[in-house]
Amino acid sequence: MIGIFDSGLGGLITLNQIIKQCPSCPTIYLGDLAHLPYGNKSEQIVTDLAIQNVKFLIAKKAKIIVIACNTASAYALNKLKSKFKNITFLDVIGPAVQKAATVCKNNRIGVIGTRATIQSLAYQKAIQKINPQIKITTQACPLLVPLIEEGWDRQPETEQILKKYLKPFVKNKIDTLILGCTHYPILKNKIAKILGPKVKIIDSAHEIAVELKKYLKNNKIAATKKSKNQFFVTDISPGLTKIAPKFLSQKQPKFKKISL
Amino acid sequence: MIGIFDSGLGGLITLNQIIKQCPSCPTIYLGDLAHLPYGNKSEQIVTDLAIQNVKFLIAKKAKIIVIACNTASAYALNKLKSKFKNITFLDVIGPAVQKAATVCKNNRIGVIGTRATIQSLAYQKAIQKINPQIKITTQACPLLVPLIEEGWDRQPETEQILKKYLKPFVKNKIDTLILGCTHYPILKNKIAKILGPKVKIIDSAHEIAVELKKYLKNNKIAATKKSKNQFFVTDISPGLTKIAPKFLSQKQPKFKKISL
Repeated sequence: MIGIFDSGLGGLITLNQIIKQCPSCPTIYLGDLAHLPYGNKSEQIVTDLAIQNVKFLIAKKAKIIVIACNTASAYALNKLKSKFKNITFLDVIGPAVQKAATVCKNNRIGVIGTRATIQSLAYQKAIQKINPQIKITTQACPLLVPLIEEGWDRQPETEQILKKYLKPFVKNKIDTLILGCTHYPILKNKIAKILGPKVKIIDSAHEIAVELKKYLKNNKIAATKKSKNQFFVTDISPGLTKIAPKFLSQKQPKFKKISL
Repeated sequence: MIGIFDSGLGGLITLNQIIKQCPSCPTIYLGDLAHLPYGNKSEQIVTDLAIQNVKFLIAKKAKIIVIACNTASAYALNKLKSKFKNITFLDVIGPAVQKAATVCKNNRIGVIGTRATIQSLAYQKAIQKINPQIKITTQACPLLVPLIEEGWDRQPETEQILKKYLKPFVKNKIDTLILGCTHYPILKNKIAKILGPKVKIIDSAHEIAVELKKYLKNNKIAATKKSKNQFFVTDISPGLTKIAPKFLSQKQPKFKKISL
C-alpha cells in the first residue's frame, strides 16, 4: 500500500503520474485541506502537520509514503525518517534534483516553489551535495497556487505574473528549471513558452513516480490484489469538487472526510 | 478587555480602526495563522476554529469579542452567541450592512468577499432582513487576499484582476459596495477609481469600530487602566514581520506564539 499526502489537492497531479508509472499499486491519498496551504507556514507547524498525516497513512497500512508536498518535503523529511523508521519515505525533492543535475549542461539550475520551500533552502542544499559547481537561482512564486486553484491558468494576468517571476532565470541563463510545487505542472507549457526551447523543465511529480517505480522493481515489490485508489481529505471545502477533476485524470474520486 | 480575532493579519486593519475610535480600550488580538486562510474552507472547520479562538480570548479575560474575520462572522456568529452567552460578540457583517442600507439610494448594493463569505449568503440575508427591496450583486474575489499579502496591491496585474472582478457591479449599476473582507480596504482607492465617484464604498473595519464605540458608550463601559494592546498568533509564519507593519499603523507589535 502506497500512501501519498499533500497539503491540498495538488498532490493528485503526483498521484496521476504514480498511477501511470505503477498502475497495479493500491494507493491511499490524503489531502490536508483543513490546514492548507503549507507554503506560507513555519517549519514547526508544517512538520507537526506532516507527522499527523503520516500517522493516519500508517494506520491505513501504508508501508511506502510519498510526500507529494514540496513544503513538507523541504521541512519535514528528516524528522519523518527518524520518527518512523520502518516506513520508506519518498520525497519530491530528491528525484527532481537528481534528474536536473543529470540533464543540466551549463551548471545553472533554476528552482521555483512556495515561499516556505524556497526559504528552506532544501533544493539548494540537495543540488550542492550532488555538484557544488552548479549555480542555483531560486524564486518564490506564492501567487501561482491561488491562480491555478482559481482556474486562471489560461488568463493573460497569469502569463504576466509568470513573466515577472521568471525574469531572474532568463537573466541568469539557466538551462534547467525545477518545478518545485505540485501545482506548477499545470503551467508547464506557459513556462516553457516564456523560457524558450533551450531550457529543460523538470516536473517533480513525474520524477517521483519514476523513482517509485524503480524502488518497487529493485525491491521486488508487486501488488498482490487488484489496484485500488482511496481518497481522504481533512475538509470538504467549497472548491473541492471543482478543483479535483482538473488535477486527476481518472473519474471524479470519492473523498472521505476525516479529522486528524 | 476587548478581544479581536481573525484568521490572519487582516484583522489588524480592523484593530487600527478600533484603536482610532476607542483609543483608551485595552485590546487583545489573536491571528490564527496556523490555520489561515478561512476563506476557502467549510462551515464546520471555520466554526470549530472560531470556537477555539474565542475560548483563548475568554481565558485572557475578554468580555467583548470582535470577529474581525468575515468568513468566521458569516459561518460562526450564531453558534458563538449561543455557546458563549455571557460574551458580547460584534461581527463585521452587521454594522457594514446597516451602513450600506442607509447610504444606498437606488436599492442596488454590491458585496465582495472570499469564496466562503459569498457562498454563505450571510450578507444577502442580512440586507434582505433590513430591506427586501434591495437587489444584491455579489462576487467572490479569492485572488485579492494573496495579491495583497504579497504586496502586489500597486501592481498593474492587480488592477486588471480587480477590473474583472468588479465588472458585474458596473453592469448592475450598484451605488454602494461593501468590502466584505478585512484585507480589501488596502485596495479601497483602486476600487473607487474603477467604480467611479458615484459608488459609495463601505469599509467593514471602519463600521465595526464605530459600532463598538457606540456600544461602549451606550453601556457606559470605560477603560479603567491605561490602554494596552496585546498580540497573539498561532504560527510565526515567514511573512509575519513583512505583512504586519503594512496593516497596523502603530509600531511593529510583538507577537507571542500560542498553540490552540
